[in-house]
Amino acid sequence: MKLLYPNTLKLDASLISGFPTITLHQYDAKSPTIPQDLLDATILVTWSNSPANLAFAAQNLTQLRWIQSLAAGPNDVLSAGFDRSRVVVTSGSGLHDATVAEHTLALLLGAARRLHEMRDFQVQGKWPGHLGGPQPDREPGTFRTLRDARVLVWGFGNIAKKLTPSLVALGAKVTGVARSDGVRAGVQVFAEDRLPELLPQTDALVMILPGDETTKHALNKERLALLPKHAWVVNVGRGMSVDEDALYEALEGEKIGGAALDVFETEPLPEGNKLYKAKNLVLSPHAAGGRPQGAEALIVDNLRRFLAGQELRNKM
Amino acid sequence: MKLLYPNTLKLDASLISGFPTITLHQYDAKSPTIPQDLLDATILVTWSNSPANLAFAAQNLTQLRWIQSLAAGPNDVLSAGFDRSRVVVTSGSGLHDATVAEHTLALLLGAARRLHEMRDFQVQGKWPGHLGGPQPDREPGTFRTLRDARVLVWGFGNIAKKLTPSLVALGAKVTGVARSDGVRAGVQVFAEDRLPELLPQTDALVMILPGDETTKHALNKERLALLPKHAWVVNVGRGMSVDEDALYEALEGEKIGGAALDVFETEPLPEGNKLYKAKNLVLSPHAAGGRPQGAEALIVDNLRRFLAGQELRNKM
Ligand SMILES: NC(=O)c1ccc[n+]([C@@H]2O[C@H](COP(=O)([O-])OP(=O)(O)OC[C@H]3O[C@@H](n4cnc5c(N)ncnc54)[C@H](OP(=O)(O)O)[C@@H]3O)[C@@H](O)[C@H]2O)c1
Ligand SMILES: NC(=O)c1ccc[n+]([C@@H]2O[C@H](COP(=O)([O-])OP(=O)(O)OC[C@H]3O[C@@H](n4cnc5c(N)ncnc54)[C@H](OP(=O)(O)O)[C@@H]3O)[C@@H](O)[C@H]2O)c1
Repeated sequence: MKLLYPNTLKLDASLISGFPTITLHQYDAKSPTIPQDLLDATILVTWSNSPANLAFAAQNLTQLRWIQSLAAGPNDVLSAGFDRSRVVVTSGSGLHDATVAEHTLALLLGAARRLHEMRDFQVQGKWPGHLGGPQPDREPGTFRTLRDARVLVWGFGNIAKKLTPSLVALGAKVTGVARSDGVRAGVQVFAEDRLPELLPQTDALVMILPGDETTKHALNKERLALLPKHAWVVNVGRGMSVDEDALYEALEGEKIGGAALDVFETEPLPEGNKLYKAKNLVLSPHAAGGRPQGAEALIVDNLRRFLAGQELRNKM
Repeated sequence: MKLLYPNTLKLDASLISGFPTITLHQYDAKSPTIPQDLLDATILVTWSNSPANLAFAAQNLTQLRWIQSLAAGPNDVLSAGFDRSRVVVTSGSGLHDATVAEHTLALLLGAARRLHEMRDFQVQGKWPGHLGGPQPDREPGTFRTLRDARVLVWGFGNIAKKLTPSLVALGAKVTGVARSDGVRAGVQVFAEDRLPELLPQTDALVMILPGDETTKHALNKERLALLPKHAWVVNVGRGMSVDEDALYEALEGEKIGGAALDVFETEPLPEGNKLYKAKNLVLSPHAAGGRPQGAEALIVDNLRRFLAGQELRNKM
């Protein structure tokens, strides 16, 4: 049985070896084709494949039974035309928790500590004195520190659980929102019907939602209007979960404090898009993840399950 | 006995009250004088006083016996001309640990995640695609994440101890440098004579040294030359501990990865100073601290000690 793994990241094949019935073959995930002798592969591992490569695989890997994507949200694989009655898709959920959590923390701290404003002054050769020296301490109606800040994390899955201890260590008060309520990783998580009470009590709203029909424009005009004037929105999930027109209006009208976005409805954000220059908007070019951690261990675990006929992890 | 407390921060006087022999009086710390009826004060609390106010106090508070500064480094009080044979000075060391640690983390994460570079692109309306998408994972010779990063904290006191858990939680390998070696807060701390071995093994050097004769230009040309080409320098202690000319040369010659400075040899950094536009330099306007946390508790503790004739905390 052939397992194909991509050349788009450093995978240590020796860490996947040892299954007697499996042979391992590297393939070029950016090539529009896959070599003839690999077309009878059973298992395909994907990571930032070109759309052409995935389309070719969907048409030509006729014996394929399982795709292990290393992306947390394998939208590319799901829309490439694979025959889902025959091919199981599993995601790389969990491989990006640490990297995305770190980037989220960077964006939150950058917003609170106004690093982007300092940068703009620096580039002009000016000292941003108003942002330094003796400062008011945790004034109500400001977001200037994570200490005592009310952070609402909407989409309370693996990434949120990884992020939480860092926020708590800095003194933030963390609350979650997900599809069902309960206590997760020590955090009180509410269902979305509680948003009308939660949003007005929020200093920083962190969105870590997947991109699907159920999350489209989850943060819309009405919900933005419930946030305090000083609240920041940080989105590291998927761009489609935020109505960008509504966000732009909220920013320009100073209805919220600011936004730091790592994901956008269209990526790359098209040249000339109004978001580039929106007031108090900080842009990050889908840079939170992009570096799967521990991919080999996930592949091995799922490979064993696959061979044993057991349920795979991260099944889509 | 009169205790004077400043109007330059929100102090809750009720939290200092209850000592029968002490009366509490607010004063204007920015005024060039102090009212006649307060000139017989025994105790003075200071926070961002004007130099004129301190000079006036030094001349006219003839019965003064103790100054409680709320600054971690009360250089202003120490150089104002108080008669130190009669007046004890205590610092606000400990009141800034959380705020300075948070800002240090913001600067470190901003550097690793290249938020300043993203900002420069954004301001030009450009998508910094090279900083996002699929990325190499912890390539040797880069500082792109705190995960597995070797962070050397030079000046391993209160602030460093507060910062360490956040760094460790993000996966950094933390080592310290101070005047004496030993294990502190779970971190291996070395004396300065070990710098020649430590600096070449450093991805991020965090300087949290006080400013005095012993720390002047601690980071000089020779020591900068020992850092790897990709290493970042973050300084949140005092500007004088870094030789800025040597740092500028190291940055422009791309001998180090970059620097994030919150403190400078001269503050505000003079207009036209070459550091504003130095390569890979991130400027922050002495914004790390500036908000004492829990000042009342320190004042009360020291007040009780003062009345009991015991050693004061944070004595200079
Ligand atoms: N920016 C980047 O570079 C980057 C990198 C990696 C991942 N991501 C994105 O981050 C997303 C989250 O990753 P993860 O690993 O944390 O996923 P996860 O563990 O699956 O968690 C997703 C969370 O979202 C909640 N959720 C899903 N649909 C919802 C809805 N309609 N309403 C309310 N909550 C909903 C889930 O609620 P329940 O727990 O109640 O089911 C869960 O708490 C990924 O899907 C991906 O799109 C971005
Ligand atoms: N940027 C800001 O807004 C801001 C705010 C607050 C404070 N600060 C600065 O941060 C400094 C540190 O604050 P802290 O509360 O952490 O002070 P701290 O607890 O007194 O710690 C100072 C550390 O520096 C070490 N040290 C002092 N002189 C040294 C020398 N010559 N060589 C090597 N190590 C030396 C000490 O070593 P030992 O432990 O071995 O004695 C100690 O580990 C303050 O003095 C202040 O200047 C800046």
